[in-house]
Amino acid sequence: MRIRVGILGATGAVGQTFVSLLDGHPWFEVTALAASERSAGKPYREAANWIASTEMPAWAAEMTVSECAPGLDCDLVFSGLDAGVAGDIEAAFARAGYAVVSNARNYRMEPTVPLLIPEVNPEHVDLIEGQDWGSDGFIVTNPNCSTVGLVMALKPLADRFGVEAVHVVTMQALSGAGYPGVPSLDSLANVVPFIGGEEEKMATETRKLLGTMGENGVEPAQVVVSAQCNRVPVLDGHTECVSVRLATSATVDEVKETLAGWSSAIAPLNLPMAPRQPVRVHEDPRYPQPRRHANAERGMQVSVGRVQACPVLGIKFVVLSHNTARGAAGGAILNAELLAATGRLDRVTAARRETAAIA
Amino acid sequence: MRIRVGILGATGAVGQTFVSLLDGHPWFEVTALAASERSAGKPYREAANWIASTEMPAWAAEMTVSECAPGLDCDLVFSGLDAGVAGDIEAAFARAGYAVVSNARNYRMEPTVPLLIPEVNPEHVDLIEGQDWGSDGFIVTNPNCSTVGLVMALKPLADRFGVEAVHVVTMQALSGAGYPGVPSLDSLANVVPFIGGEEEKMATETRKLLGTMGENGVEPAQVVVSAQCNRVPVLDGHTECVSVRLATSATVDEVKETLAGWSSAIAPLNLPMAPRQPVRVHEDPRYPQPRRHANAERGMQVSVGRVQACPVLGIKFVVLSHNTARGAAGGAILNAELLAATGRLDRVTAARRETAAIA
Amino acid sequence: MRIRVGILGATGAVGQTFVSLLDGHPWFEVTALAASERSAGKPYREAANWIASTEMPAWAAEMTVSECAPGLDCDLVFSGLDAGVAGDIEAAFARAGYAVVSNARNYRMEPTVPLLIPEVNPEHVDLIEGQDWGSDGFIVTNPNCSTVGLVMALKPLADRFGVEAVHVVTMQALSGAGYPGVPSLDSLANVVPFIGGEEEKMATETRKLLGTMGENGVEPAQVVVSAQCNRVPVLDGHTECVSVRLATSATVDEVKETLAGWSSAIAPLNLPMAPRQPVRVHEDPRYPQPRRHANAERGMQVSVGRVQACPVLGIKFVVLSHNTARGAAGGAILNAELLAATGRLDRVTAARRETAAIA
Amino acid sequence: MRIRVGILGATGAVGQTFVSLLDGHPWFEVTALAASERSAGKPYREAANWIASTEMPAWAAEMTVSECAPGLDCDLVFSGLDAGVAGDIEAAFARAGYAVVSNARNYRMEPTVPLLIPEVNPEHVDLIEGQDWGSDGFIVTNPNCSTVGLVMALKPLADRFGVEAVHVVTMQALSGAGYPGVPSLDSLANVVPFIGGEEEKMATETRKLLGTMGENGVEPAQVVVSAQCNRVPVLDGHTECVSVRLATSATVDEVKETLAGWSSAIAPLNLPMAPRQPVRVHEDPRYPQPRRHANAERGMQVSVGRVQACPVLGIKFVVLSHNTARGAAGGAILNAELLAATGRLDRVTAARRETAAIA
Repeated sequence: MRIRVGILGATGAVGQTFVSLLDGHPWFEVTALAASERSAGKPYREAANWIASTEMPAWAAEMTVSECAPGLDCDLVFSGLDAGVAGDIEAAFARAGYAVVSNARNYRMEPTVPLLIPEVNPEHVDLIEGQDWGSDGFIVTNPNCSTVGLVMALKPLADRFGVEAVHVVTMQALSGAGYPGVPSLDSLANVVPFIGGEEEKMATETRKLLGTMGENGVEPAQVVVSAQCNRVPVLDGHTECVSVRLATSATVDEVKETLAGWSSAIAPLNLPMAPRQPVRVHEDPRYPQPRRHANAERGMQVSVGRVQACPVLGIKFVVLSHNTARGAAGGAILNAELLAATGRLDRVTAARRETAAIA
Repeated sequence: MRIRVGILGATGAVGQTFVSLLDGHPWFEVTALAASERSAGKPYREAANWIASTEMPAWAAEMTVSECAPGLDCDLVFSGLDAGVAGDIEAAFARAGYAVVSNARNYRMEPTVPLLIPEVNPEHVDLIEGQDWGSDGFIVTNPNCSTVGLVMALKPLADRFGVEAVHVVTMQALSGAGYPGVPSLDSLANVVPFIGGEEEKMATETRKLLGTMGENGVEPAQVVVSAQCNRVPVLDGHTECVSVRLATSATVDEVKETLAGWSSAIAPLNLPMAPRQPVRVHEDPRYPQPRRHANAERGMQVSVGRVQACPVLGIKFVVLSHNTARGAAGGAILNAELLAATGRLDRVTAARRETAAIA
Repeated sequence: MRIRVGILGATGAVGQTFVSLLDGHPWFEVTALAASERSAGKPYREAANWIASTEMPAWAAEMTVSECAPGLDCDLVFSGLDAGVAGDIEAAFARAGYAVVSNARNYRMEPTVPLLIPEVNPEHVDLIEGQDWGSDGFIVTNPNCSTVGLVMALKPLADRFGVEAVHVVTMQALSGAGYPGVPSLDSLANVVPFIGGEEEKMATETRKLLGTMGENGVEPAQVVVSAQCNRVPVLDGHTECVSVRLATSATVDEVKETLAGWSSAIAPLNLPMAPRQPVRVHEDPRYPQPRRHANAERGMQVSVGRVQACPVLGIKFVVLSHNTARGAAGGAILNAELLAATGRLDRVTAARRETAAIA
Repeated sequence: MRIRVGILGATGAVGQTFVSLLDGHPWFEVTALAASERSAGKPYREAANWIASTEMPAWAAEMTVSECAPGLDCDLVFSGLDAGVAGDIEAAFARAGYAVVSNARNYRMEPTVPLLIPEVNPEHVDLIEGQDWGSDGFIVTNPNCSTVGLVMALKPLADRFGVEAVHVVTMQALSGAGYPGVPSLDSLANVVPFIGGEEEKMATETRKLLGTMGENGVEPAQVVVSAQCNRVPVLDGHTECVSVRLATSATVDEVKETLAGWSSAIAPLNLPMAPRQPVRVHEDPRYPQPRRHANAERGMQVSVGRVQACPVLGIKFVVLSHNTARGAAGGAILNAELLAATGRLDRVTAARRETAAIA
């Protein structure tokens, strides 16, 4: 299996993470890097202000950046575009018959667009049957970077005990705001107790992700979510203090076992980007910490610690996930792997190659 | 009024804040600086590794550091001692007839020791009548640095609406851990989701502070508190995300008015260290921030922002307070001012001067 | 003496420092705050994204921001404008008869414009006689924030021993780049070894500042300067490692005495903003540090430490100065005080008031 | 080739880097982890407070920590011990017939002990012939973390142009101070312009490293070195501003070519830990930066940028190297690889296995 993929918004913070995580991928070959007009025509090496601590892969450095318009030489596009432009561009690619695997927020809450975490709700992928772009193209999305760690920890609890209410306070990394993002004078030795739109997204996305696939699409889960979102001076990794009211009571040990022992529905697929253990439970009370644990399993494992009884809501714990890996590019790649492994790319690939052959 | 005061643990982080905040105080004259044997006999300038961004006051620089033992030339001692040694030393000073105004945790939960925030529970000072050190001496305490901001915001709400349950997640500054405190490799670009003993203190101290003074001492308030405490890379100022279940419902606007308009019981006393406005409510959603607002009114004002409805508990907001000013030395100085203004120091001062005259 | 002053660029980082430092000034009354069109017409409270750790003065909060055009109700303007717009606006004010005390770089190297550090070269103020704006107006400037600390330390050495060559490596604070300035992803836990134009400015400005006032203006000093400029994650205070080749040799002790004992030519004027001791020499090898010493004497004192023999150039030391106080707004205010104390404002003030009376 | 190695001081900051970098090493198999009495007997997982951002290798986690005394089941020991204890322990291992590859400073300047950077002075390894521990054991050392990057950049310049004088100002990472190391209150948003003993080490070590191997050992190079060392809030990677007076003049382009094109004497050996390109030259003036480039080639490549003419000394540039990889554990591993590849371990391995067989 060799699938040709492009990256939209390849020079941005999320785009760069796509490039890093796709380096050496066994299924996906990056054949197009696309960005704004300003970057188009330049070698990626020049166009991207590389912000990671790892080196830019050599194959990417010499690729020429294209514009974000259909015509890219690939079958699937990963979108790391800003919400301001993602809506139109992603629609154009879907109409042109591409599989669009997007990290942008624009289509997440559309009834026919799957909002996916493969370990959590792989069956939601069926929603794409309801999309009609006048082509074989479609769009799937992954959730906000602050939602994904929370829901990975809630899912096994919801399955076993039921989840009625969730209270979450986030301490989010700077890379979540992109580049240039947060000015250093706002960030160094400071906390900003506000991230625009984030608290609402955590509530609505959580309900869709934990929702049930029915005849009329996804029936949102009946869970009440209250989020308070903060920006802290951390580079990568969102830390979240979570308290949960379960439908049936559970001991601290039961919660730990349920989280640590969780084997998701996609485990048998052995997807390349999937962590061997989706949720790790730490016993050391000082853990998890973003600098120490965000990178676990290439940033795809979610770390949980400090599981305790909560006198107000019942159970509480700390959850940590890598915001640009699991929470953005890595999550999108895992979505694409799910599509590939379940045959969802066959039609689009065949159709696009046929079209290309004719042209 | 001129009261002679000493500082126990004067070279430590809290001790240094006592020195800074007492500089130019209208009532209290620092006549003794005491610290461990290692520092005793040295000029304060040499003994203290001054960590503040302001300069060491000249009068302090040249004072000779004494040992922490009764015999100090003063009537009242402020204690910035570590809990490991505070218990015995503070008792020795109380037995020797000193007024001991302590920041240490050792006696906070003792039934006859007032745990005081003057704006919140000034009437608890009567507890000292129940102390018997075989002298005129006594001990009063102020709460943990993470408790004080929370309770300053809860008190006006409790008075007007009743408070049933509180959920709080803290993001605490490094100076709260003292010096050397947190290693920089644990702190830079990181969050540590654990501070030993802190979560328990926030629960028990809150109940005592909001409790009712009765015939048999303080009856703790019936409020359920769940705290999750984190260390973040901030120098000064604890930020806390608070959610509250009130006994009678309140709108966001009612909560804002109640907090911003709160005039505490001690307002008429015009204590020198008391902020003109004890709680400020910010409308800018990005505020409060530790680097911008911790120093408000010499670090004695508590800042509140982001007052919102909480779908889980009813109301939520962010509270910020300066952990070494309001949360430690400044709080203790305000306690001493309350004692002075209400005549509680008269007996101890008279007795100690008489003893000194005889000796 | 009561002089009415305006602040151009009042909402920016430097403008905010002007507002802070002019709060309570004994001579200068701020009667106008001016900024870009976007801010004009708003109360300063709303227009300025206040970045300091101290509170916005109440008098400033309620002032209405004006546009940066002549007509402001004042006799002297402080300019905290960006270089991109400062050239035209400052010229317009000079032509309109205002005294312009600028922090911008545009006119610093003009032969008839004084580049002033009052302690170092107060006699250069005579250059304004050569300016002809068709009015009584004129422009004076202060040096770049990285130059001023260096030259304050070099001046007493140049006077006593002669300075032939200077090698300086800077570690500059984030506030020197203004707001939004450096993105946090470039800054947190990082060093950027480049600041555009800074190394050149340190060389040319140093030569003018240490130059001799002659018949044809300032004859630049014959000193070779090599600078390497770095941005480090510090909020305020530029730290610089300086090595100097003196014309006549000096011992470490002689250098220390010369710096610590320096009494500048303006000492007798007792200017309000002038530090009592312009250069402080630290003996503790760990000092000076930006977080501990940048604020010394309201940020106007320069701190020196680690004076040692340099096997390559002769003598070396570390110098620290506050970049937005001494290095920008504070330096400009001191320049204005020098103008006032030496009668340089009399003509402009009289002329402007006369014009205003007619109008 | 399979060589059994132990790590002394395995739980410390440098010891942990040894564990990380030896994970999957093609020649060296870690068969012993040793640390202080406090750790001995515990599984490494518990004994080490793992500070890296990568995960502890599984094989290390379950190993039992031994005491640092001869008897360890291995032929070569890497020493990450603190200087306070390294002297005696390393001598004991040498006497017991082990090859000791040390990162500690204790024996670096001993006339018969090689101070090695394999790319720079591999011939110095012959010094071990002069060691006499009454066994086949011996000690080799690598330089201080701040020296190695400097000397890697100086060596090709010295070979081609001659180096007469070096002026260097360092901005050193926190991990160089070990754990707990620098208190966060000294480090966050601050610079400390002093690191005990560091400036002296940079001078003496540079002269030995660049020295000539003669009949009587190493004749130190006649180069004058002046260093000023600073601690900055960076996690990994020492940045250094270097100015050099060459014996014969060189243009900026010649310097760049010489550095970028340097092929060291050990290139033909293809040692596993050796970077393909020992020195990389950046053209982007904003580079190198510790967060972006310290990890280049597993932290073994030295990055150079901002090569410019220096009006004082001739040529200047910025050099960056990873202080715990290239500057500590990685450098030591490369030393051990040089020993193995040149047959220096054969005798010690044979002798030790013989001894072990008898016992």
